Amino acid sequence: MCLRARNSVSEFICTKTITGPAAWLSTDYTDPDQWTVAITESDTTELFAALRSARGAGKALSEITRADFPLNELAKKLAEVSEDLVEGRGFVVLRGFPIGADIPRADIEMMYWGLCSHLGIPVTQNGRGEVIVPVKNYGNGGLLNASTRGYQTNESLPFHTDSSDIVGLLCLKSSGQGGLSSLTSSVTIHNELLRNHRELLGLYYAGFYYDRRDEQAGGEAPYYRNTVYSWNDGRLTCRYYLRNFIESARERYGIEVSPVERLALDTFESIANRGDFTLKMQIRPGDIQLLNDNSIVHARDAFVDTDEISRELLRLWFNPFGAPVPPAGHAAFREGMPVQQATAE
Amino acid sequence: MCLRARNSVSEFICTKTITGPAAWLSTDYTDPDQWTVAITESDTTELFAALRSARGAGKALSEITRADFPLNELAKKLAEVSEDLVEGRGFVVLRGFPIGADIPRADIEMMYWGLCSHLGIPVTQNGRGEVIVPVKNYGNGGLLNASTRGYQTNESLPFHTDSSDIVGLLCLKSSGQGGLSSLTSSVTIHNELLRNHRELLGLYYAGFYYDRRDEQAGGEAPYYRNTVYSWNDGRLTCRYYLRNFIESARERYGIEVSPVERLALDTFESIANRGDFTLKMQIRPGDIQLLNDNSIVHARDAFVDTDEISRELLRLWFNPFGAPVPPAGHAAFREGMPVQQATAE
Repeated sequence: MCLRARNSVSEFICTKTITGPAAWLSTDYTDPDQWTVAITESDTTELFAALRSARGAGKALSEITRADFPLNELAKKLAEVSEDLVEGRGFVVLRGFPIGADIPRADIEMMYWGLCSHLGIPVTQNGRGEVIVPVKNYGNGGLLNASTRGYQTNESLPFHTDSSDIVGLLCLKSSGQGGLSSLTSSVTIHNELLRNHRELLGLYYAGFYYDRRDEQAGGEAPYYRNTVYSWNDGRLTCRYYLRNFIESARERYGIEVSPVERLALDTFESIANRGDFTLKMQIRPGDIQLLNDNSIVHARDAFVDTDEISRELLRLWFNPFGAPVPPAGHAAFREGMPVQQATAE
Repeated sequence: MCLRARNSVSEFICTKTITGPAAWLSTDYTDPDQWTVAITESDTTELFAALRSARGAGKALSEITRADFPLNELAKKLAEVSEDLVEGRGFVVLRGFPIGADIPRADIEMMYWGLCSHLGIPVTQNGRGEVIVPVKNYGNGGLLNASTRGYQTNESLPFHTDSSDIVGLLCLKSSGQGGLSSLTSSVTIHNELLRNHRELLGLYYAGFYYDRRDEQAGGEAPYYRNTVYSWNDGRLTCRYYLRNFIESARERYGIEVSPVERLALDTFESIANRGDFTLKMQIRPGDIQLLNDNSIVHARDAFVDTDEISRELLRLWFNPFGAPVPPAGHAAFREGMPVQQATAE
């Protein structure tokens, strides 16, 4: 292992404007066809064949790898999708995934898992070790309830990232109203911070303290620190977790948030919300929205369920094969949420 | 009280180069006569007269105010000294204070206190409530001992500020070797940070966590957060406490210091040490070195005591009359160290 002295600011903080496909503006993407990839009839045939093969292996869903879920032409398509996600603009929508009412939920989940197993390695999303999590209104009181997480509410969620490198959202049901999705390149945000708010830049690299929302494993502190940006081996990555959890760590555990730290959070979100930076899209049933958390922050409008229809998405978190591991203190829970042991009584 | 919305960076962070006498370079001050003010024979006569008057009042030293310690021409001289300290370059050396072997220590302390009572209001310096503290080698293990403070060692002390607005050091005895004093304008450091390290600037305004060195009062956390710079109502002020206490809070209480925070500390000290920014001086017996902690950081070389002579300075902390109160989270202990109650046994 080569230990290098790191003592110049450019080794810790990206001080150059980043160009390339990850640094996009909303004007670069005005046509959904630019980011939408259709799952064709023959792709669907491949998915069902792979489903039968995976069922034949007799494994639990979480043990299924891409070897257990053989795809052919669709695998090649997914390799291009992965390229766009990891090296390109950082977001893709797969359209036309089979979610028909005639398909058992377990089969939909297995095919979704199987498809994503060609894009990377899934990780756990909560203390119960769940790897496919329904994103819907759980009716447990919204984010003001200290144990509630964003995926369990129908509230608007301000710009944030999830924990893993890639988040997938398969839409099973839209809501009657709302739920519009907003995406902004966190690389573009960094460029803007560097250009017009350079004095704040170091704060994102120092990190903020977040409430674990009662998902700490035994002996862990109920909060953790995470850096918003990391610049490591010439690679800029971002993790901007829900800001509510910073205020929640302050309220519950007394972790101070200084005025200039709040200004940095305000500034980040204000830039993320700029019309020239943000792309809006509505996810429809059968869509899989794939986002690279390293380079995209996303937000969601509040939604309203009706008696007839309740919005439901299935979320998967995964890391691309061979993806670089971020430095300590950045991208907390990228490898999954720690699973809590059930206490014996 | 007028509550203003503060949401622009220039309300939280000074983003302009500061000019004026506080932003000095070492080349501005090459002759000790520029910062030295002689205490003349007639000044000394005034001091002894005021001492007799103060003794006549029958008060304890800490209760003596400037009204109890009447000065005439020396008071006018001290008003100019105060002007240089508060609005000017931020440092002054008074030379020729009476410390002769024939003067009882209590009289020296009373005259020192009385003189400073014309410059501001003294505050406590430790948990025992002491207001005049000997700066010397206490022989209690140096800063590696978690309860030791800087004034108790003969070690070199890197650039730092004390807690109050002004620190006074009356030299009773020089050491055989070492103890050279270094001063740098923290306004000049800020200008340089703004010019060449702007991406780090926000970190100094967010603050660092410091070990209280076992001087916490009952119920207090054993560490506290303090911002290095504050920009309040168009006024830049600095408190750069001994960096050892940041690392000590990390070691003893697990408060993380991120690489970019360490870089910010390295950068601050590296600028403070620049030859074109730093002024070196040797304090001699009878000198009172007065420093404005809002605008000056100071360092001290290690010193070596001999059998014949042990370096000893008397330190006073005080705040000028009517000085603005800094915002919360900045200049911790400016009003004095909390005095610990003696526990009944």
